[in-house]
Amino acid sequence: MTQVDQYYMAQALRLARLGRYTAFPNPNVGCVLVRDGQIIGQGWHQKAGEGHAEVNALASVVNIDEVKGSTAYVTLEPCSHQGRTPPCADTLVSAGVNKVVIAMKDPNPLVSGRGIAKLEAAGIEVVVGILESEAKALNKGFISRMERKRPFLRCKMAMSLDGRTAMQSGESQWITGASARTQVQRMRASSSAIITGVSSVIYDDCSLTVRAEQLDLEQAEQIAQRQPLRVILDSQLRVPLTAKILKQAGETVVLFCQSNADKEQALLAKGVTCVQLAADEVGRVSLQAVMDYLYQRECNDVLLETGATLAGAFVQAGLIDELIIFMAPTLLGHSARGLFNLPTIHKMADQQPLEILSSRVVGKDLMLTARFSGNQ
Amino acid sequence: MTQVDQYYMAQALRLARLGRYTAFPNPNVGCVLVRDGQIIGQGWHQKAGEGHAEVNALASVVNIDEVKGSTAYVTLEPCSHQGRTPPCADTLVSAGVNKVVIAMKDPNPLVSGRGIAKLEAAGIEVVVGILESEAKALNKGFISRMERKRPFLRCKMAMSLDGRTAMQSGESQWITGASARTQVQRMRASSSAIITGVSSVIYDDCSLTVRAEQLDLEQAEQIAQRQPLRVILDSQLRVPLTAKILKQAGETVVLFCQSNADKEQALLAKGVTCVQLAADEVGRVSLQAVMDYLYQRECNDVLLETGATLAGAFVQAGLIDELIIFMAPTLLGHSARGLFNLPTIHKMADQQPLEILSSRVVGKDLMLTARFSGNQ
Repeated sequence: MTQVDQYYMAQALRLARLGRYTAFPNPNVGCVLVRDGQIIGQGWHQKAGEGHAEVNALASVVNIDEVKGSTAYVTLEPCSHQGRTPPCADTLVSAGVNKVVIAMKDPNPLVSGRGIAKLEAAGIEVVVGILESEAKALNKGFISRMERKRPFLRCKMAMSLDGRTAMQSGESQWITGASARTQVQRMRASSSAIITGVSSVIYDDCSLTVRAEQLDLEQAEQIAQRQPLRVILDSQLRVPLTAKILKQAGETVVLFCQSNADKEQALLAKGVTCVQLAADEVGRVSLQAVMDYLYQRECNDVLLETGATLAGAFVQAGLIDELIIFMAPTLLGHSARGLFNLPTIHKMADQQPLEILSSRVVGKDLMLTARFSGNQ
Repeated sequence: MTQVDQYYMAQALRLARLGRYTAFPNPNVGCVLVRDGQIIGQGWHQKAGEGHAEVNALASVVNIDEVKGSTAYVTLEPCSHQGRTPPCADTLVSAGVNKVVIAMKDPNPLVSGRGIAKLEAAGIEVVVGILESEAKALNKGFISRMERKRPFLRCKMAMSLDGRTAMQSGESQWITGASARTQVQRMRASSSAIITGVSSVIYDDCSLTVRAEQLDLEQAEQIAQRQPLRVILDSQLRVPLTAKILKQAGETVVLFCQSNADKEQALLAKGVTCVQLAADEVGRVSLQAVMDYLYQRECNDVLLETGATLAGAFVQAGLIDELIIFMAPTLLGHSARGLFNLPTIHKMADQQPLEILSSRVVGKDLMLTARFSGNQ
């Protein structure tokens, strides 16, 4: 009955997606309870510390007697451990479901398969792998954190048709349209953290916030109440104390490697988190250390919004998983600034291969998504 | 009966398209003859000097008595003048058709509307404008030549995701895949002429030919027998006499502005056409003069395949109508060569706006089509 299973799992995935602006650091999970060809309950994980998808689905059932003998469709293997809530595998067993259909196993190697084992031990029929790739696509960040012990890193860039981001002089302005900006806002809202370099802070005075009015979503106000962690890579603590980014709601973290007690003190006084990390061989904050720090902070999806130098360094460190390019229908010419500084590319054989995943029209612009295949 | 008219006109357009590698300098035209809901004849214009679409459609009718009282669907207004063949408007009148449905008027301002007038004078019902925009899209080059007295100029570029075409050193290689190359070959095959700069000839030793084996079309061998005019912009006649491009089948034209009798003589001896054109203010062949020359040569669609300097000059002269970018999933970095040298762009306000018409996946690459709105 794979077609039936896919039908209900698709609904569970739609539900899971509803948590994408609120569920982190937890994964997006949806659950549908079906009996005699009818959906009798459904739920999704909305917020860490609150009910898991299975619990919410059970809570939504009108006639609780119907749960006995029903089938549960869950986009992720039910948990087997006591966390902030009781183990969902036990909850499903107690509720008396007959069968559990799971899109993907728990990516945490320490617990993967245990939820399934618990269900099977209780005599429940378990099917795994229905719409698995769709479920994986929904939780790239969570899976990355569990399996690779690092966040999934997306690099977002806006450029002209000829691959330029700003004038030689540094003069820049939004070259993409309102629809592209909305997409960027949504990417920010669904990210655990946003990384930028201190140069972007100094020259562009960027805020890197989620703005409710640009999200173009029903629950925009609520979503914008949580601001993603703002992370400034600032090896020598050069960030101006007057920078806009330091005054925004939510947490700003400055990652540095050369200490400066006075500056640190001043930043702390402004409520900024300052963390000293290892330096790389040229005396800048080690990008690997940055990823480790974000892993410790339980970041799933991290967005890199920065200039050509830092973005190029991340490319060359092999740390970018996905590249999202917003391409504006304009030409800026050969002397305008490029997308990535890649100082180690001297010949064609050095080029960095990617794979284009999608291209879609966003207002008057194009949005391209490409994958650094080697990094995953 | 617009839906019925669109149905048959769509078929006439499909037929017209069959002539796209052979009809020039004539337009692509298709014709369908319909009687009592049945197609009784169809044809298209295959080759200049041979039958027009209407004549070919009439010739295909099995029972010629059926033509009387039938409806003719033609993608372009039937001609009213004696050319290499008799006027098609007269032919349709003599054949006894009842009604003529036309997608678009003749774009030649000298004769536009005359064919329609002839038909109407003979008492035939005429409908104009069915699938007009589709018909116009099919004959952009011919329409441009008729209405603007210049060819429709497409600039084709291949670049990396970060807008680079070659290494700083000049080292380059095909960065796009086989499918993109096939698209380029078809673009060449449907063009009247291909323009390049002498630098591309000197440094890349390009041939700019249509190669049957790369067209991936049934009639590839036949199509490749006609080679588009190869046009080298070579202000000072620097083209090497050993260049590959001079040895290819078909005609090569060298457009220059500083004479050099010996070099001209040597080129003529190799069968190369040499034409002196006006110089621009910096002593290079005037790009406007190039367009005028190609107009005189009855070129409809012209493809520009060249480097950043000449392509940039065409952009800045406002002569490019369409930009086709093949984007390979690779990064070449900031020191690699850019797409367009646009020396007059210094600030954001100088940027050249375009409109993105389409984006599609071609093998592992993307093919973007954009329009210079200001130039049309």
